[in-house]
Amino acid sequence: MHEGAQNFLRLWQSVVDDRDAKGIEQLLADDISMGAPPYWNRIDGKETVGYLLGIISETIVNFTYHRTWVDERELALEFTGQVGDCELQGIDLITIDDTGLITRLDVMIRPENALAALRECVAPRMLEFFERRNE
Amino acid sequence: MHEGAQNFLRLWQSVVDDRDAKGIEQLLADDISMGAPPYWNRIDGKETVGYLLGIISETIVNFTYHRTWVDERELALEFTGQVGDCELQGIDLITIDDTGLITRLDVMIRPENALAALRECVAPRMLEFFERRNE
Repeated sequence: MHEGAQNFLRLWQSVVDDRDAKGIEQLLADDISMGAPPYWNRIDGKETVGYLLGIISETIVNFTYHRTWVDERELALEFTGQVGDCELQGIDLITIDDTGLITRLDVMIRPENALAALRECVAPRMLEFFERRNE
Repeated sequence: MHEGAQNFLRLWQSVVDDRDAKGIEQLLADDISMGAPPYWNRIDGKETVGYLLGIISETIVNFTYHRTWVDERELALEFTGQVGDCELQGIDLITIDDTGLITRLDVMIRPENALAALRECVAPRMLEFFERRNE
């Protein structure tokens, strides 16, 4: 396995397991671009994506990684968890740069009710975040 | 790359590119289990999954594979396409058996409006399929 990817994977799984929002943010490149599950338009920048990932990691309980694929600096990480009463399965598609930071992250989850439940929990808190930032 | 996986990948991308429903079905194990994007409950069996994949391949236009990951008999295939006015990105998580047939397939797509549009196109046709089969 690509050494940078191997180091990244160990760090990433550790901060995600610990729900360590600060540690998660430290693994994001300044210009990270994220494709979130509900929306087509991308969310950009370390501060915003870091905040969003912090909320998501608080919202999905029993978050567990399963199969992982690594091809050079491209990774695919399968996970399962629950939002409220909804079981979910998802994937993180991750691109890391040559310093081991995430430059691109796309997240997809199934089924539809879990996706809607996640959005309903996360969207109001992101709206507050944007409103605070614009004050 | 695992030789069986390499052969499978070449065949699979060919039948999907050609929207060859019969060719797709021939790459499914009899006891295939599929996790479809909208539902948590799985869809089982070659006939049902083959029919569903045929409908999905007719419904998603401009279907294109991008990044692919292979780890022994586990594959992750990223794709993009459109349903109606909705752009979509998705992933096929595939397990093949030692004869190169799919035993497990999980499909996740984003964003939410594309997932809903896909379900709205596919669900009525699957309902007809189940009704016909039960006549």
